[in-house]
Amino acid sequence: MSRLIELPTRADARGALTFIEGGRHIPFPLARIFLIYGVAPGYDRGHHAHRRCRQVVIAMSGAVTVAIEDGSTSSRVRLDSPMTGLLIEPMEWHTLEDFAPGTACLVLASQRYDEADYIRDHDAFRREVARDARAGPQAQR
Amino acid sequence: MSRLIELPTRADARGALTFIEGGRHIPFPLARIFLIYGVAPGYDRGHHAHRRCRQVVIAMSGAVTVAIEDGSTSSRVRLDSPMTGLLIEPMEWHTLEDFAPGTACLVLASQRYDEADYIRDHDAFRREVARDARAGPQAQR
Repeated sequence: MSRLIELPTRADARGALTFIEGGRHIPFPLARIFLIYGVAPGYDRGHHAHRRCRQVVIAMSGAVTVAIEDGSTSSRVRLDSPMTGLLIEPMEWHTLEDFAPGTACLVLASQRYDEADYIRDHDAFRREVARDARAGPQAQR
Repeated sequence: MSRLIELPTRADARGALTFIEGGRHIPFPLARIFLIYGVAPGYDRGHHAHRRCRQVVIAMSGAVTVAIEDGSTSSRVRLDSPMTGLLIEPMEWHTLEDFAPGTACLVLASQRYDEADYIRDHDAFRREVARDARAGPQAQR
């Protein structure tokens, strides 16, 4: 289930430094990162779920709202600090919304890019969630 | 020797996405990342060299100048786009300067944190560079 992660940070009058080692400060090795920026007003990003990939989203500058739905519950989290990351687990449909002007997001991912890992159709996502729920926890990813 | 790396980017009217896989789009696995932000006007960061750690510096928002010195040559590069990273090699003394207001820097590192990998004294750095040069390329890291 998604959750916030406080990232280790050293801040003083000169500025702030946040550091992240894969497998230590986040619960997976760093296979891939991506940067989202220059998002035009009114546009969203995301609109998909991953079958295996885990991710941590960090607002490096500006602010963004992450909407998450796991098939039974939904949540919305506003991110506005590099000191806090949002862990998104597999099979959590997520959308990045309400980007403040100038926002730059950093996303850390546990897997290299694999298009087969993406579920981009919301109906297909709900069918996979329902199938996993019927199969029971042992069968889940 | 330090060099700029163009990072793969997909940009359209909705916004931009830059992605980086360790060992693929940069020449090392992603062991650690750190975020530098909130730097007060007139302050610099860095002022050290690494013995083994390789790094890529990216200006996620704003702009920063990276000054590099390898013992024989020096260079200065202004970074102002998430689409371009600056590779800094071991035994390159580096300083991050002239932060534009609101700048957020992302640094990708090849090694986990190890204080023994840092050379924080400039005279000691010059002595190690001179010793390496005398030992010849085979003996270098």
